Amino acid sequence: MIDSEEEKLPEEKYVEEMVKNLQQGTDKVPHLLETAVSGLPAKWRNWVIRGVFTMIMVSGFGVIIYGGPLALMVTTLLVQVKCFEEIISIGYSVYRIHGLPWFRSLSWYFLLTSNYFFYGENLVDYFGVVINKLDYLRFLVKYHRFLSFSLYCMGFVWFVLSLVKKYYMKQFSLFAWTHVALLIVVTQSYLIIQNIFEGMIWFIVPVSMIVCNDVMAYMFGFFFGKTPLIKLSPKKTWEGFIGGGFATVIFGLMFSWFLCHYQYFVCPIEYNEKLNKMAIECEPSYLFRPQEYEILGKSITMYPFMLHSLSLSIFSSVIGPFGGFFASGFKRAFKIKDFGDMIPGHGGIMDRFDCQFLMATFVNVYISSFIRTASPGKLLAQVYTLKPEQQLQLFNSLKDHLEARNILDIN
Amino acid sequence: MIDSEEEKLPEEKYVEEMVKNLQQGTDKVPHLLETAVSGLPAKWRNWVIRGVFTMIMVSGFGVIIYGGPLALMVTTLLVQVKCFEEIISIGYSVYRIHGLPWFRSLSWYFLLTSNYFFYGENLVDYFGVVINKLDYLRFLVKYHRFLSFSLYCMGFVWFVLSLVKKYYMKQFSLFAWTHVALLIVVTQSYLIIQNIFEGMIWFIVPVSMIVCNDVMAYMFGFFFGKTPLIKLSPKKTWEGFIGGGFATVIFGLMFSWFLCHYQYFVCPIEYNEKLNKMAIECEPSYLFRPQEYEILGKSITMYPFMLHSLSLSIFSSVIGPFGGFFASGFKRAFKIKDFGDMIPGHGGIMDRFDCQFLMATFVNVYISSFIRTASPGKLLAQVYTLKPEQQLQLFNSLKDHLEARNILDIN
Repeated sequence: MIDSEEEKLPEEKYVEEMVKNLQQGTDKVPHLLETAVSGLPAKWRNWVIRGVFTMIMVSGFGVIIYGGPLALMVTTLLVQVKCFEEIISIGYSVYRIHGLPWFRSLSWYFLLTSNYFFYGENLVDYFGVVINKLDYLRFLVKYHRFLSFSLYCMGFVWFVLSLVKKYYMKQFSLFAWTHVALLIVVTQSYLIIQNIFEGMIWFIVPVSMIVCNDVMAYMFGFFFGKTPLIKLSPKKTWEGFIGGGFATVIFGLMFSWFLCHYQYFVCPIEYNEKLNKMAIECEPSYLFRPQEYEILGKSITMYPFMLHSLSLSIFSSVIGPFGGFFASGFKRAFKIKDFGDMIPGHGGIMDRFDCQFLMATFVNVYISSFIRTASPGKLLAQVYTLKPEQQLQLFNSLKDHLEARNILDIN
Repeated sequence: MIDSEEEKLPEEKYVEEMVKNLQQGTDKVPHLLETAVSGLPAKWRNWVIRGVFTMIMVSGFGVIIYGGPLALMVTTLLVQVKCFEEIISIGYSVYRIHGLPWFRSLSWYFLLTSNYFFYGENLVDYFGVVINKLDYLRFLVKYHRFLSFSLYCMGFVWFVLSLVKKYYMKQFSLFAWTHVALLIVVTQSYLIIQNIFEGMIWFIVPVSMIVCNDVMAYMFGFFFGKTPLIKLSPKKTWEGFIGGGFATVIFGLMFSWFLCHYQYFVCPIEYNEKLNKMAIECEPSYLFRPQEYEILGKSITMYPFMLHSLSLSIFSSVIGPFGGFFASGFKRAFKIKDFGDMIPGHGGIMDRFDCQFLMATFVNVYISSFIRTASPGKLLAQVYTLKPEQQLQLFNSLKDHLEARNILDIN
């Protein structure tokens, strides 16, 4: 299958040379912690540092959840921006870009534009009722796509005008690099925000599952690992993969069971007209009301959501790790150790979020295929945008339909 | 702004070397035509060949329009596949890929998957009523996104498993290349299909405008061109740009005026329940009914659509050419003459469609921002998917709303 190109290509040599200059993830550690672990043998030092920062991150996650959906969304946005920055920085270094006209500004401009588009779509969807009350915002809603596209076109024209003969190839490569980064980073965070609106449980459970799978696969691999899993990541083992999978399923069931008790986690976030603000209050849907199940002759009580959590945990432990393999492959391709150096002992933000990417899409698709049913409220809002005679026409058709099915009494 | 990297980078030398091996757009010409033009001076030969094939293409376009919306959609799909093939082939040649495991299959697999997703979304939207009648298809509709995403995940896993150490960088570069090609090619054809469904005029007018602008800018440039427009395409002149723009505006007005007379062109394509098939029949909407306008004291009769055609022609002559500049820049970056050699005298399919890409998105966004209003039929179909008690709830809210506004008589 592979022809005999054993020798390295000039392109590959070039990249090797380039990445020597690339900023490598340093193991920078806060001074206090540095002093505390200085007595330990070297091989344990990284363990402790990594452990401490895992704890810090998990607690931080807890605090953000306590802060509510808005805090979660802001965090998602910040993580997205940081991931974008890490990916783009690698691109700059690989293509040795220092004086390319406008390129940094252009990348950030595209990030802004695509966020304007995607976040706007979400806002229009979920805050439509509120926004339509304010006259000066209605314009932004009505022409949202047109405005976004105009912004994009300006960036496109700007890019074409910034082309300089001797940099053509680099400029086009980085243009593609930027767009792939946007595809990965911005669309994912758009889907994540949608998941949060369906109820925070749809965000917290999957994210925790990936974290659990990461940690447990590492643990199982450390203690029982013998059989190598994939060449791409030589440290990963089948034992870790399988053990981590089982642990994730069990963790998922328990954690879901716990979260299902609280309206705060299970209710969709909706605009409450009476309170005139966003609220998380609801009669929990069927998924989050305890039901009797007959399993092996025994009757047990659980939440239907726990069955869905099974699908989520299977995905996160079977397909999730491939996000990580993909990221390792990428790092190897460009011969970098980590994406960044933001989190001591862990590397960059991208190093921690590599497996989360496919997961967000999976959850979003899962909700739209298996969970979400059309909401009467949203449909009604759309009906009100029709012309009066169309509303009347729809009303009469619906009336006939309901009468024909004896849902509506004929009076 | 630009630092002093005058000397060529190894990477650029590498690309130069590579593209020497790249299949260049040959000027292959059918034998009969070859013989016919052999008497002409060399510089006119290409003119005649190019002219003949322009005529052939325009007539072909006419025939396809006569064939109706389905023929247009199939053509769009074929053009899309060919464009994808041309872009991907350049990628293969640039990265000198001959024996990379699975790569060709993977690219085509991703093309299939994304088409399955995007075309499916359209079909579900426009043929929902029909599809829901057939039980064995309902499954495909209900789980469409889930199935598409599963297919994509399979491709993703396949890619990760196909990674081979010494090819990492090429494999990731081509993975990105494939995804950018999909972004450009597949999403555009998805939007084009949506435009066709709104009425064929929304497809025919913009496409013809771009063709007109191309041809007329060339003509004006040929006869009056003096002032260079942009370094990227040294043959383009300000005279061509401006002359082409005016010609396009006038052509757009006239052509729109002509097409507005026929239901065949202006009616949306909708499923007709009585006839049990897709049909192009309607009471033409306001846009396509002649109205009196007062212009400079004179009263003239025209179609409101003609005003919209002004926006379209301005876009196609101001922003449209940037699609072409972008494509020339790309060709220069990779030192190729044409994208392919499919159309004698013109190059590849991509060479003819480079300006069409942004246009399709513009039309789609334009329709959704300025033209389309929610359709009572589609909304009603969504209402019917609700549970009976939700339908009743919606019915009662709507009733109160209509009564409060005196649209519905209280009986």
